[in-house]
Amino acid sequence: MKADDFIPTSVPYVSGRTRLFGIVGHPIEQVRSPAFVTAELSRRGRDAVLVPIHLPSDRFEELMPAIMAVENLDGLIITIPYKARATRFAHDLGRQARLTGTVSVMAKTRAGWRGEMFDGIGCAAAIRRRNVAITGSRIGLYGVGGAGSAIALALASENPRSLTIRDPDSARCEMITSQLRKAFPYLAVTQAVPIPDEIDILINASPVGMLDPAASVIRDQRLPSRLAVMDIVMAPDRTRLLQIAEGSGCITIYGREMLGSQIEAVTDYLTEN
Amino acid sequence: MKADDFIPTSVPYVSGRTRLFGIVGHPIEQVRSPAFVTAELSRRGRDAVLVPIHLPSDRFEELMPAIMAVENLDGLIITIPYKARATRFAHDLGRQARLTGTVSVMAKTRAGWRGEMFDGIGCAAAIRRRNVAITGSRIGLYGVGGAGSAIALALASENPRSLTIRDPDSARCEMITSQLRKAFPYLAVTQAVPIPDEIDILINASPVGMLDPAASVIRDQRLPSRLAVMDIVMAPDRTRLLQIAEGSGCITIYGREMLGSQIEAVTDYLTEN
Repeated sequence: MKADDFIPTSVPYVSGRTRLFGIVGHPIEQVRSPAFVTAELSRRGRDAVLVPIHLPSDRFEELMPAIMAVENLDGLIITIPYKARATRFAHDLGRQARLTGTVSVMAKTRAGWRGEMFDGIGCAAAIRRRNVAITGSRIGLYGVGGAGSAIALALASENPRSLTIRDPDSARCEMITSQLRKAFPYLAVTQAVPIPDEIDILINASPVGMLDPAASVIRDQRLPSRLAVMDIVMAPDRTRLLQIAEGSGCITIYGREMLGSQIEAVTDYLTEN
Repeated sequence: MKADDFIPTSVPYVSGRTRLFGIVGHPIEQVRSPAFVTAELSRRGRDAVLVPIHLPSDRFEELMPAIMAVENLDGLIITIPYKARATRFAHDLGRQARLTGTVSVMAKTRAGWRGEMFDGIGCAAAIRRRNVAITGSRIGLYGVGGAGSAIALALASENPRSLTIRDPDSARCEMITSQLRKAFPYLAVTQAVPIPDEIDILINASPVGMLDPAASVIRDQRLPSRLAVMDIVMAPDRTRLLQIAEGSGCITIYGREMLGSQIEAVTDYLTEN
């Protein structure tokens, strides 16, 4: 064997100069941010990678400050079960973070770490991206679980005319309603089944349509064509609700659009420093 | 814009399932392990990435245990200035680590973290890879700085007949000689300029030839053809010493071969758990 037979090879996507980002959670295998946000960072010409950081739940408070002290680490995405527990590590909380008491992203700035909750912001951004006005509109929202309640608060922040929410868990529905009324005293919040003729935007933030592709939150087989209909369910891509909306000539907004808008917004936040 | 215009893209090299490795140092920008070791991990079919981890010097002892507690992190490479300070974090030290009082690699195993010093092992492995016997051979070594002393100890561990070392820093040369004599009582260690006719392997572990491509540690313009000559200098690739050796018909071993052998050995160690 000659010397030339043995030349070390290298990868182009990580070097000593690469800036680090992480997603902190438990468990961690299911997260999609490493592949998606790294692609977005790379598309923007950043020499950066977002890696999974699996922290054990009983040591989260002890380990977070150390992870944040890594000098070439510029930001963190926070996922289940740490979204509430991570708030104490941000020196400055954004509006959605204060409203929800949770953070989904933390970014290092010269003034310290700031944190914001983006789980609802992606939904609002996806609607805006399709030139559908949120301000002044009448919104019907199915599902106020983790994602749904973040969406309710993010949409409420953009001054819609009314918000009608529906969730089979009535205690939870009541709690979110009180929270919305307290934070947005001028917003009309109703707990009811949204009536298609009386709203402008219909959103499904419930899991209905995910496990059973024939299921839909609405009984109607036809919707007013002026309605914008969004479904945050990602798989199937085209849910029964979206099929009905498309058949009715509505503007339809897919789950992947919320994901795309959220990736953009999160990447903006992580790199604005 | 239609929904289909906006589909999130992803990268194939990092996901929630990716296992993490890191290189810990200060500064960090210059390190090459992320690109090289990640390529080797990938070549072996591992879903893994080795990232730079820049720890500030005054917080190293505080932060290391937290980095080691990240559940999906399986190993660390240790570089300047932490090779000695990191030894306390390994529960089990390998032979070269004990001899040198330093570690360059730490790997998580079921029984805890083990550590070993690979800076000299790559040199020995590169020589072996070219079918040059170290055991029983007479070795001449120029340079016993950080790399050179690790190489001296790694070669001494393979039972050569003699080791002649030369370094302009005579105090350092004396210190390494004592250390070698204590650790290997049966090895003949001499502090002298190696005489080409009296050795089998000639190694340059000094920086001579790096800054001045016309410079060489030897004055000879011709060497015995039975000699194996190695230069750990990486740039230029083909140093003056190697040119003379090639012109003399010697076996020549390049710096990049040491690097390649070291990457293989380090990757073996990081993934043997």
